Amino acid sequence: MYVLRFLDMDDELHMGFAFDGSTARIIKGNIFGDFDTTNKKVAVQKILAPVQPTAIFCIGLNYRLHAKETGMPIPDYPVVFMKNPAAVTGPRDIITIPTSCIDPPQVDYEAELAVIIGKTCKNVTPDEAMGYIFGYTCANDISARRWQKHAGGGQWIRGKSFDTFCPMGPALVTADEITNPQSLTVECRLNGKLMQESSTSDMIFSIGEVISYLSESTTLLPGTVILTGTPSGVGYTRKPQVFLRPGDVLETAITGMGYLENKVVEESDD
Amino acid sequence: MYVLRFLDMDDELHMGFAFDGSTARIIKGNIFGDFDTTNKKVAVQKILAPVQPTAIFCIGLNYRLHAKETGMPIPDYPVVFMKNPAAVTGPRDIITIPTSCIDPPQVDYEAELAVIIGKTCKNVTPDEAMGYIFGYTCANDISARRWQKHAGGGQWIRGKSFDTFCPMGPALVTADEITNPQSLTVECRLNGKLMQESSTSDMIFSIGEVISYLSESTTLLPGTVILTGTPSGVGYTRKPQVFLRPGDVLETAITGMGYLENKVVEESDD
Repeated sequence: MYVLRFLDMDDELHMGFAFDGSTARIIKGNIFGDFDTTNKKVAVQKILAPVQPTAIFCIGLNYRLHAKETGMPIPDYPVVFMKNPAAVTGPRDIITIPTSCIDPPQVDYEAELAVIIGKTCKNVTPDEAMGYIFGYTCANDISARRWQKHAGGGQWIRGKSFDTFCPMGPALVTADEITNPQSLTVECRLNGKLMQESSTSDMIFSIGEVISYLSESTTLLPGTVILTGTPSGVGYTRKPQVFLRPGDVLETAITGMGYLENKVVEESDD
Repeated sequence: MYVLRFLDMDDELHMGFAFDGSTARIIKGNIFGDFDTTNKKVAVQKILAPVQPTAIFCIGLNYRLHAKETGMPIPDYPVVFMKNPAAVTGPRDIITIPTSCIDPPQVDYEAELAVIIGKTCKNVTPDEAMGYIFGYTCANDISARRWQKHAGGGQWIRGKSFDTFCPMGPALVTADEITNPQSLTVECRLNGKLMQESSTSDMIFSIGEVISYLSESTTLLPGTVILTGTPSGVGYTRKPQVFLRPGDVLETAITGMGYLENKVVEESDD
């Protein structure tokens, strides 16, 4: 099932499925608890990010070629960081370059497979972990490199948590739709040019291993989103470096999950 | 007002105030929106952490003497990291040492003043920031040092986010009760022995400056909790080092806010 979160023509919020391009059928209840699919069709005005995360965990350096391009060693354990849940934005919304990141330019893209936890889990094995996944979606871990690095005192949070720095969607694709989540193509295009293209088979730590690791002595609540790392091809390792600029269009696509299309603007001072 | 979050004798959840040691008066509605104080008294069975955070931001190295004891330079900007909201535990609950942190011991205490944001804020000045504070409470930023440091690949999140690593409470003390939040004494006792004792006047970045900084291009939602840093006296910088062990009792107190009392246990393997 492809689950949408959307506003109808009266700005009312719904969860839905069976989107035909203009209408969707309503899901009643809590998708992470008891819910029912209905036959009631509603016109879709605006598609939102498919989930409001209870927490966003992210894995750094989880693709072999990306670890290589950053010049950093393959990590012994998954490198874990978080993003502010308020950073989430929709699949067709704008990405805003914060005032403090305009000069010099530093805002970069990182196309990623997002995993959405559906049931409370703690201390699960990699095999068990797969049973706690509600579904998957496309995400982009937008990153302000200067804040991520030295200006953040070595902690990546600030550079990862500005508003609109986590576009997600368009749909939450339930786990049963994805035969093998470790053989999906992740792509990122900037103004139509292919910048990242890799398979989730290049991950250093598999999705099950990542969830198992995060769940060690730690409760992952329903609605927890895990960004599973980005493949090679990010902007700041290129020669010359590439950073997002006003007017750019960023596309993020994953096999079977549709795509994000986010325009870039600068934060205005007023 | 001293706002409690608690369970009654039927395990029903309430917000309340005017706690007399056994009963509290009920608050109806959303404390971050429209709410009413009532005269209805209910018996308190268990006091919970006073808020379920929408996000937990933390500031590292924000007391001069603590920065000195870690051997790290005074930072140019506040060092920002996060904790998993699910790490929150109550003012009299246990702190659990995760299986991966037992041998060698590494779990440390960090008494901290917690600020709770009451209204959505973004791009506020330090002066304006104070108007967005709903209240304050005691917190302890429990930290697994090995995971925080090298085993976490330099990112602190994992070592800060295990379950029970954020005891908070006992009450949410509304901002109007605190005349000067920059002149409060923060204390931490381990088995009755004073380990940390400092004034919030030693902060490098004031509470207003921290909120203003976090709000730059970033939405802080109601219920966002900010741990404002810990003073000197943490365990891992002592000679010999001190880490939490099963059976320990950790007390965290702040002027006018009561105290936390958390016993330490080890995670069991079953």
